[in-house]
Amino acid sequence: MEVYFDNAATTRVLDQVKDVVVEAMTVDYGNPAAKHRKGMEAEQYIRTARSRIAKTLKVTEKEILFTSGGSESNNTALIGAALANRRAGSHIITTNIEHPSVYNTLAFLEESGFSVTYLAVDRNGHISLEELRETVREDTILVSVMYVNNEVGAVEEPEEISRVIKEKNPRTLFHVDAIQAYGKYSIRPRRQGIDLLSVSGHKIHGPKGVGFLYIRDGVKIKPLIYGGGQQGGMRSGTENVPGVAGLGVAAEEVYRNHEMKVAQMIELKDYMTDCLESLDGVTVNSKRGRESAPQIVSASFAGVRSEVLLHALEDKGIYVSSGSACSSHHPGVSGTLKGIGLPAGLLDSTLRFSFGLFNTKGEIDYCMDVLKELLPVLRKYRPRR
Amino acid sequence: MEVYFDNAATTRVLDQVKDVVVEAMTVDYGNPAAKHRKGMEAEQYIRTARSRIAKTLKVTEKEILFTSGGSESNNTALIGAALANRRAGSHIITTNIEHPSVYNTLAFLEESGFSVTYLAVDRNGHISLEELRETVREDTILVSVMYVNNEVGAVEEPEEISRVIKEKNPRTLFHVDAIQAYGKYSIRPRRQGIDLLSVSGHKIHGPKGVGFLYIRDGVKIKPLIYGGGQQGGMRSGTENVPGVAGLGVAAEEVYRNHEMKVAQMIELKDYMTDCLESLDGVTVNSKRGRESAPQIVSASFAGVRSEVLLHALEDKGIYVSSGSACSSHHPGVSGTLKGIGLPAGLLDSTLRFSFGLFNTKGEIDYCMDVLKELLPVLRKYRPRR
Repeated sequence: MEVYFDNAATTRVLDQVKDVVVEAMTVDYGNPAAKHRKGMEAEQYIRTARSRIAKTLKVTEKEILFTSGGSESNNTALIGAALANRRAGSHIITTNIEHPSVYNTLAFLEESGFSVTYLAVDRNGHISLEELRETVREDTILVSVMYVNNEVGAVEEPEEISRVIKEKNPRTLFHVDAIQAYGKYSIRPRRQGIDLLSVSGHKIHGPKGVGFLYIRDGVKIKPLIYGGGQQGGMRSGTENVPGVAGLGVAAEEVYRNHEMKVAQMIELKDYMTDCLESLDGVTVNSKRGRESAPQIVSASFAGVRSEVLLHALEDKGIYVSSGSACSSHHPGVSGTLKGIGLPAGLLDSTLRFSFGLFNTKGEIDYCMDVLKELLPVLRKYRPRR
Repeated sequence: MEVYFDNAATTRVLDQVKDVVVEAMTVDYGNPAAKHRKGMEAEQYIRTARSRIAKTLKVTEKEILFTSGGSESNNTALIGAALANRRAGSHIITTNIEHPSVYNTLAFLEESGFSVTYLAVDRNGHISLEELRETVREDTILVSVMYVNNEVGAVEEPEEISRVIKEKNPRTLFHVDAIQAYGKYSIRPRRQGIDLLSVSGHKIHGPKGVGFLYIRDGVKIKPLIYGGGQQGGMRSGTENVPGVAGLGVAAEEVYRNHEMKVAQMIELKDYMTDCLESLDGVTVNSKRGRESAPQIVSASFAGVRSEVLLHALEDKGIYVSSGSACSSHHPGVSGTLKGIGLPAGLLDSTLRFSFGLFNTKGEIDYCMDVLKELLPVLRKYRPRR
């Protein structure tokens, strides 16, 4: 049996996505910038995708900028906003549990003369609105906060955060890394006061190598990539037509019968949480129900090293993640797990199980059977310290 | 009949490319950063592609950096080299017939305090080595020259250019935009003295949304995109596994029996050039044989507006380009055509016919029949000036 519980790292593309990608690679393969029919046909794929995506957020089509993925979306938002607003100030605020594509980009901006304040989070992964209010200044040009944390599934309320920011400084831009949130939440950038919102295709059963950045109409940022002036000059380079088309199909699909899909995922999460908590020495770090993201169960297994358990599960065909796969090139210990106050002894004993559209309850049952068999054995052989 | 003569704008992907893209999207869809088997399998696609590409250039695998395409490759090379070498100087040299992804990126660097010298080209599209020698200074950190011009197919000799640069200043980096050259020439960055070389996937029957930058071992540049530290921290973001795998397959394929493929393309080019020159009032701006790129025929049609002819050909199923599709978002007149000294009256009467692996002589015959029928009619209705 193969059980893929690593959907927060990446997902299998939907068949409909695969079909449109193939069509755009082999039949309607024109360059959208070309003036002939094959160019128009290719451009139509981009328009359709843009329209599908805009509808999922209830925004206008011109507010969607296609990128090569979540990292480029975050880099474009942060570097683009910083460079465009340098005259207004050089202060940026973020949290200490952001994804590396946010915190490493901010580190680059710090080298370039910007100053960054990192807000701590509580045990639930939430920043303090009070502290945020005190931190926003006259020269604060940007606040960047993750919607759903990729390691434990903690969820922030963008609307409240935006209100606090804008009350203190209406010119401060609010960027939301929604890479783990898009497809799982009904996101309304306008109502929630979000100026910039990053999304990745391959987290929602769309293709890798494509994503988008929502840029609220009126917000000025500098491009990251210069060239032929595609996408209104905001992101040059021949559009990745197959990727963009695939992303459009995936976006429409994850938001079709959305409430039902989310409810099913929460059911899986709560079921798995119940099962895991019935085991000795297992702590679930994610909340039940709507208090944390529907797709993520983070659990700590006392007395077992996460990497050992990960490979033992792999031997049984179960694929999970230790920490975040997106940053697993960085050994070191997870900033998020420390950030939410996980006891030091459990930092290196934590796994992330993450669901997608294809997972079933039967897979959880299989995983639990395997865990019940593995855990006592692995604990027997734990290394002495 | 459908005749696609716009392969310099973009190409149809090869069937083998499509197959590997589908496999990586639907079966081996793991995140290369994941520690389990599905991650390893995905990583293997990246390794294989890297190895295939490195072989085509006779370079080492670690010198290949995957990007989202040619524009990102050019931006990474130029911005990356400029930011990493700021202490050594701020002078950059290029030509006045570069692609917008070079000249617009350099315009951004000029705004950021760098100074750029633009070398003129002669009727053959070549810079003067003498002028280059005089222009390279102590504080020249970078020279960027296009290998094959995308509009007329003019070819530079990177080896000679590199020798002149390095004699004057051995620390000056030499970047080559090889987006129209890769797959058409046997490129040997080490022997040719190239430090940075940009390539795009979709110009060689590979996927859109993927490309690479060759970075000579030892050359230090700054990343353009920060994040999870993928590709040695030089280009963060989950690798576009399907795209990269497709690019690897396309690269291997275009360089299989390469001499034969190039010879066939040159035969097509020379045949078309002969046919076009037999028509009244038609001038071919590209050279025959090895003196210009094998895939590009630029021709001027006196008394006919290029856009009118483009659409008339389109009605007969023939797809060509006016100027360069990559920059057709910029109306205005082509810098390249002006640069090579095309008479003002022909600037707006020029079309580009460009070949790929799928084109045949029969398609040229059909195109010529159509042109012979169209040209007299279109000239009759030319607008009076």
